[in-house]
Amino acid sequence: MKIGKSTVPRTAICTSDEHTIVVRGKNLCDDLIGHLNFADYFFLLLTGQKPDAAASAVLNATLVAIAEHGFVPSVQASRMTYAAAPDALQGAVAAGILGCGSVILGASETAGRLFTDVAARMDAGESLDDAAAGAIRELKAGGRSIPGYGHPLHKANDPRVDRLIAVATEAGADLRYVRIAQAIERAIPGIVGKELRLNVSAAIPAVLLGVGFPVRSLRGVPILARTAGLIAHLAEEAEQPSGFALSYQATRELQYEGEVPEGFLGQA
Amino acid sequence: MKIGKSTVPRTAICTSDEHTIVVRGKNLCDDLIGHLNFADYFFLLLTGQKPDAAASAVLNATLVAIAEHGFVPSVQASRMTYAAAPDALQGAVAAGILGCGSVILGASETAGRLFTDVAARMDAGESLDDAAAGAIRELKAGGRSIPGYGHPLHKANDPRVDRLIAVATEAGADLRYVRIAQAIERAIPGIVGKELRLNVSAAIPAVLLGVGFPVRSLRGVPILARTAGLIAHLAEEAEQPSGFALSYQATRELQYEGEVPEGFLGQA
Amino acid sequence: MKIGKSTVPRTAICTSDEHTIVVRGKNLCDDLIGHLNFADYFFLLLTGQKPDAAASAVLNATLVAIAEHGFVPSVQASRMTYAAAPDALQGAVAAGILGCGSVILGASETAGRLFTDVAARMDAGESLDDAAAGAIRELKAGGRSIPGYGHPLHKANDPRVDRLIAVATEAGADLRYVRIAQAIERAIPGIVGKELRLNVSAAIPAVLLGVGFPVRSLRGVPILARTAGLIAHLAEEAEQPSGFALSYQATRELQYEGEVPEGFLGQA
Amino acid sequence: MKIGKSTVPRTAICTSDEHTIVVRGKNLCDDLIGHLNFADYFFLLLTGQKPDAAASAVLNATLVAIAEHGFVPSVQASRMTYAAAPDALQGAVAAGILGCGSVILGASETAGRLFTDVAARMDAGESLDDAAAGAIRELKAGGRSIPGYGHPLHKANDPRVDRLIAVATEAGADLRYVRIAQAIERAIPGIVGKELRLNVSAAIPAVLLGVGFPVRSLRGVPILARTAGLIAHLAEEAEQPSGFALSYQATRELQYEGEVPEGFLGQA
Repeated sequence: MKIGKSTVPRTAICTSDEHTIVVRGKNLCDDLIGHLNFADYFFLLLTGQKPDAAASAVLNATLVAIAEHGFVPSVQASRMTYAAAPDALQGAVAAGILGCGSVILGASETAGRLFTDVAARMDAGESLDDAAAGAIRELKAGGRSIPGYGHPLHKANDPRVDRLIAVATEAGADLRYVRIAQAIERAIPGIVGKELRLNVSAAIPAVLLGVGFPVRSLRGVPILARTAGLIAHLAEEAEQPSGFALSYQATRELQYEGEVPEGFLGQA
Repeated sequence: MKIGKSTVPRTAICTSDEHTIVVRGKNLCDDLIGHLNFADYFFLLLTGQKPDAAASAVLNATLVAIAEHGFVPSVQASRMTYAAAPDALQGAVAAGILGCGSVILGASETAGRLFTDVAARMDAGESLDDAAAGAIRELKAGGRSIPGYGHPLHKANDPRVDRLIAVATEAGADLRYVRIAQAIERAIPGIVGKELRLNVSAAIPAVLLGVGFPVRSLRGVPILARTAGLIAHLAEEAEQPSGFALSYQATRELQYEGEVPEGFLGQA
Repeated sequence: MKIGKSTVPRTAICTSDEHTIVVRGKNLCDDLIGHLNFADYFFLLLTGQKPDAAASAVLNATLVAIAEHGFVPSVQASRMTYAAAPDALQGAVAAGILGCGSVILGASETAGRLFTDVAARMDAGESLDDAAAGAIRELKAGGRSIPGYGHPLHKANDPRVDRLIAVATEAGADLRYVRIAQAIERAIPGIVGKELRLNVSAAIPAVLLGVGFPVRSLRGVPILARTAGLIAHLAEEAEQPSGFALSYQATRELQYEGEVPEGFLGQA
Repeated sequence: MKIGKSTVPRTAICTSDEHTIVVRGKNLCDDLIGHLNFADYFFLLLTGQKPDAAASAVLNATLVAIAEHGFVPSVQASRMTYAAAPDALQGAVAAGILGCGSVILGASETAGRLFTDVAARMDAGESLDDAAAGAIRELKAGGRSIPGYGHPLHKANDPRVDRLIAVATEAGADLRYVRIAQAIERAIPGIVGKELRLNVSAAIPAVLLGVGFPVRSLRGVPILARTAGLIAHLAEEAEQPSGFALSYQATRELQYEGEVPEGFLGQA
């Protein structure tokens, strides 16, 4: 059944014959394996270009920054899945990745779109602070939260933010989007009525957009990074299981609020 | 409900307070971000140790080698999923990862277990060639295939194999498992009755086991690597859709072999 | 780490002790197993109420209508995943479900929201035809397509539509949303400029909303139904594999549009 | 790239043209929608045959029995996933299904294979009790657990077991596999050294194998059933969130057992 217009698949990423694998126009074996690190290869796969030194430093730093933060919900979901289905490592990884959605890790993409919106306002002539304030007012008017600002644990300061900005600065990256991110932070109290500090999900696009990382693939950064963390958690789960213990603890204070049949005593 | 023995979850990977995130005993921001590349961090997450130079070179090389090979089945599944559900990038990535199973990418783990089995035979006193032949005979007797040998496209020679071995050699890695992998390749024709050359799924454990990568996490290497490739494919899919075209092409020669009701004409 | 306001999980669906399982206030073993069919139980799980005869007839009919339609993209994705990872049936089912997204099967929910929007306009005093036209004009002004209208194969008439309406009529269901769906069909040519006939994704909410099925769970109907179809396809795949054949066919006309290194010959 | 022998996909499940959808040789609209319930259609999809009255009663009963049992690990994983990614209902359902693995719900398949093994021993001339004891001794010798026996909550008696057997008996189903399941239960104490009572995962194949349900699709029963339960939980989650509360509770007693850098104070 034909769905959509094109019936011929097309790609510019990879082709191969019996002797050669071509990726983004390069010979995989001669030009790439052993010549660049994995994060740089990710950049090449996405953009068709090898990253320069600044882009390499910044992309590696963001992937390291976001890969792991303990027993977050997606890690718990993944470990519970592995406990129930230990034969399928790939299934437990997939379950964890499915939690990289709009509320938690997807903020790196929505924050990135906020920054490019501010940049477009500046290109149209607004000052940095006016553009930042305008974008926040628009979010507030639409009843939406500011993506990438505020953190449930790191309230005063997400320590990854300053470190990522320092890495970008040392690497000589274009800091335009860092300045935009900071301008938004300054503008928030006056418009939203409380301080919300930059968190790692906003710092990631703030540093990456300046080195040519495409805004449309920003969500790929936490997805790829967390995959590494999930594989480590599942290796630990295989040796020292926590999945069922997490599930047990999670429901110790569960409150059942529905009806019960006559005579039902419950788990007292 | 309590399932299993322990009711308290435990971990040695990560802890944090408001100001500091600790990963494998290091301060994430002071010691790790900006100080090591993403693949090295993956090694640290998995093992608790930073990789040495050889391990870093070899792990990065294997991740680059296996990340991308065109429109393989898992990439097709992922692109079709994205075409149908473009709002959920994480869902399309998960669909692709779910194809990293025993038949396709899981061979890197089963090949690794084959190599550690041969190594154990050698530790027990067998020669390299006897140990290799013994392990293959055992697989053959059990009716199992030799994981990591033979490739549907790269029949004479998978070009990634020589390149990975060259990288490991140049990096000064322990080549014990490379020699085991090659001994198996030599032994196959006499036992199996045909040549089956080392493919990339065997080359990966052959070089990684020599630099301290844990055998139990070998399947994590293609999973992490393919995640990078999938994210690139989905970025291309978002700009130039192929998912439905793949689906259309896939069924052009579909044969329906069931019954039909009287009068049904079909799609002719 | 605390995310969100509540720290205590709550539910009204199920509780149990050692002797009794309570679902929606009923004793699962005494009151439910053997007393109602599976689709009716799904209705009870969702709403807390047993369906009446009309709701039972209509819900069963919609699940039967949407469960299976051959090698659609999600079935292909699922079969390819199973071919690559046959040890994990649940993984291949999950890969198929991940294709129940906004473009393909999710239309049953968005169509349902369109119908409740028209109903709200009627409650506010508009006539059926004015309300239908108003809702379509709004979609068109926003550049959005009309969810649930038009089908790539069943162009003149999706045969499931008339049959679902006939079942609902025979069962004595409230047909209000059917009339709304038909009014939209009539209004489309004048506003959109071409005929787009009701398809099964619109017929499902058209009949279900009249029997008390909650609009917010409409996407659950194709998800549950397709799960049954996927399990059947994977049983066939285990006996007569098509997954890799689909993948092979899909790329026979693949066009590579990127660069190649000097001397690369390609697969000619 | 060609993988495997066949390059032409084949199916006997469904075909269609513009006017007619054929499923298992029947006209979907004329013969099926409105003529059989959803579970019966699942049976037809799987086997190509409509179920008789006993098979219909038993299959519906098993699906009702296993669909829901509160906040089990897979429900928790699904609700946490939905909390993090509420835009993708299908992703949260998929995450829950990925927990239908070998340890938890997959036991219905492995128990079914145990029962067909006992039946084969009986066909070869062994008595019921000898065949049951022989099969258990073989499992014990291999260091494997008895699939479908023992339950962490319902220790003395899983109430679903007697009810499923009663439904099968009332429906006039062949009870051969029920007798096998009960013989295994009787044989366990003498061989394993403790009582392990039949649980629902063994009762499901015990009743289903007698009505012609294929052993190879037994794992599909809990997968399909739990999909219904998951959709209900996610509807509740959308209205009254528990996902993040579960995650918070789960880690209240989490013990970090790794090293910390000098000066790290922790969350005290």
